[in-house]
Amino acid sequence: MFLGTSAATPTRYRGLPGLVLKYRGSLLLFDCGEGTQHRLVEAGLSPLKIKAIFITHLHGDHVFGLPGLIQSMAMNNRREDLYVYGPRGIADMLETVFEATKFTPPFNIHVVEVGGGEKFKVLDRVWVSVFPVRHTVEAYGYTVYEEPRPGKVDVEKARKLGIEPGPLLGLLQRGIPVSVGGRLVRPEEVVGKPRPGFRLVYTGDTAPIDGLRKLVGFDSVDVLVHDATFTSEYELEAHEEGHSTAFDAARAAVELGAKLLVLTHFSARYKSPEPLVSEASRLHPNVVAAEDLLKLPIRL
Amino acid sequence: MFLGTSAATPTRYRGLPGLVLKYRGSLLLFDCGEGTQHRLVEAGLSPLKIKAIFITHLHGDHVFGLPGLIQSMAMNNRREDLYVYGPRGIADMLETVFEATKFTPPFNIHVVEVGGGEKFKVLDRVWVSVFPVRHTVEAYGYTVYEEPRPGKVDVEKARKLGIEPGPLLGLLQRGIPVSVGGRLVRPEEVVGKPRPGFRLVYTGDTAPIDGLRKLVGFDSVDVLVHDATFTSEYELEAHEEGHSTAFDAARAAVELGAKLLVLTHFSARYKSPEPLVSEASRLHPNVVAAEDLLKLPIRL
Repeated sequence: MFLGTSAATPTRYRGLPGLVLKYRGSLLLFDCGEGTQHRLVEAGLSPLKIKAIFITHLHGDHVFGLPGLIQSMAMNNRREDLYVYGPRGIADMLETVFEATKFTPPFNIHVVEVGGGEKFKVLDRVWVSVFPVRHTVEAYGYTVYEEPRPGKVDVEKARKLGIEPGPLLGLLQRGIPVSVGGRLVRPEEVVGKPRPGFRLVYTGDTAPIDGLRKLVGFDSVDVLVHDATFTSEYELEAHEEGHSTAFDAARAAVELGAKLLVLTHFSARYKSPEPLVSEASRLHPNVVAAEDLLKLPIRL
Repeated sequence: MFLGTSAATPTRYRGLPGLVLKYRGSLLLFDCGEGTQHRLVEAGLSPLKIKAIFITHLHGDHVFGLPGLIQSMAMNNRREDLYVYGPRGIADMLETVFEATKFTPPFNIHVVEVGGGEKFKVLDRVWVSVFPVRHTVEAYGYTVYEEPRPGKVDVEKARKLGIEPGPLLGLLQRGIPVSVGGRLVRPEEVVGKPRPGFRLVYTGDTAPIDGLRKLVGFDSVDVLVHDATFTSEYELEAHEEGHSTAFDAARAAVELGAKLLVLTHFSARYKSPEPLVSEASRLHPNVVAAEDLLKLPIRL
């Protein structure tokens, strides 16, 4: 769910950057512009469910919601550890702000300063890898990916072999052969090939990135959420300011084999995102413009 | 206009503390919780009109909107000086945050760290004085007051003396005698007594204050905006946490001769402010509960 989709300053309808990913009841937050905690309240999402926060870069519009969100977690009696990933400087900034506002977190905050190339297991079965992007300050994109899921079970075939849905089938799905009625059943007899997990790439603010596919490390992804601050008309301005056009975003989506391209981080100059979607659609078939509180599937 | 009226954390309907006062097109902002700039956008008020910002204390919910608001002023090409008043530590905090987010303001920011007892001329004809309040950290209240306005002119009487509305009458209103048809007219013949300017007191977060009237320095004020986090049922908790009950607020309003008491900073425990208003009304005749985006007159 998008919590904010504007660039630099909030508008009447768009808040500052924030994107929350829900996986089996747990939340991962990407960027945390001012007002992110307000949007979470609006969306009915509890900050206590957030396991980790990923900041793309230390510009105010992407990070000024972080101290307040953490303090609200404390007000809501959080005791669980929190992980915060972001560029160098984020630990110092949080420390100074907490010191100035006389705040001591009642839970552990693990601040991990990234440099690109790392990968972290952030939830059971879910990993996040970090890649450098091209902005006016040190900035990173994040790839969120799930471990491959076991293949689908052919229930009919299993029944014919005398295996009813239950623990034995579960073992087979996990790759373990079982013996049924004196006959050894191998997993590949009833279980299909492992299915890839979902993959989502979030670039944060960036000019077009050379070798994006290699940086991301996948031949295809489900969803690419890409900076699309401007239309091509302002290409020069976009690149100079470390941003992309909608067309740049579409090129990245093609390179990454993205099933869905989501444009976000719109300049306040656009009253409607229609020109941006229309531009990206010249290159990629599945394009949507993010809206605050828009929910999208992460597995396509 | 109230921009935020909640305590500590935002709720679905109430943002974090912020109060903006409009005087002849200029704005003064008191407290700046996270999301204040979003509310200004909603209210259609330009951050460029803000001449000075007054922070009562350095708790996150009162100050985390400040860096973002200032950066948005810069994005909107502000060049005019900005004055920021607040407790010790506010200058350092802003400096660190701006450094971490690579932000250099393109206009002068005069940060004035207060200690109580100062008064500042903040607009033409408008002053703000500072008084210490009782919170869990160093905290100040602010009294905003206008210089006395000239008395009303008795236009009929002036006409009888041969003076038509115009420059001569203006001179008289400013206290300067004029000679009309050979007769010296003294100001007091046609101009009433000077009228007091408006006076508004904003306490920020505070437990009941001893000697409030002396600290404020006025026998009567138009509007008192007072912390009313809880009802008397939670008096002990309120005072321990450096807050007031609605009844405490009403006592302060009586002491200050406030024509209107505005309760604000409500605990999220109250779905409706009705019990708070009802409690304060036992002691003071004119009580309203602040709401986000509520506009009230400052001159009563």
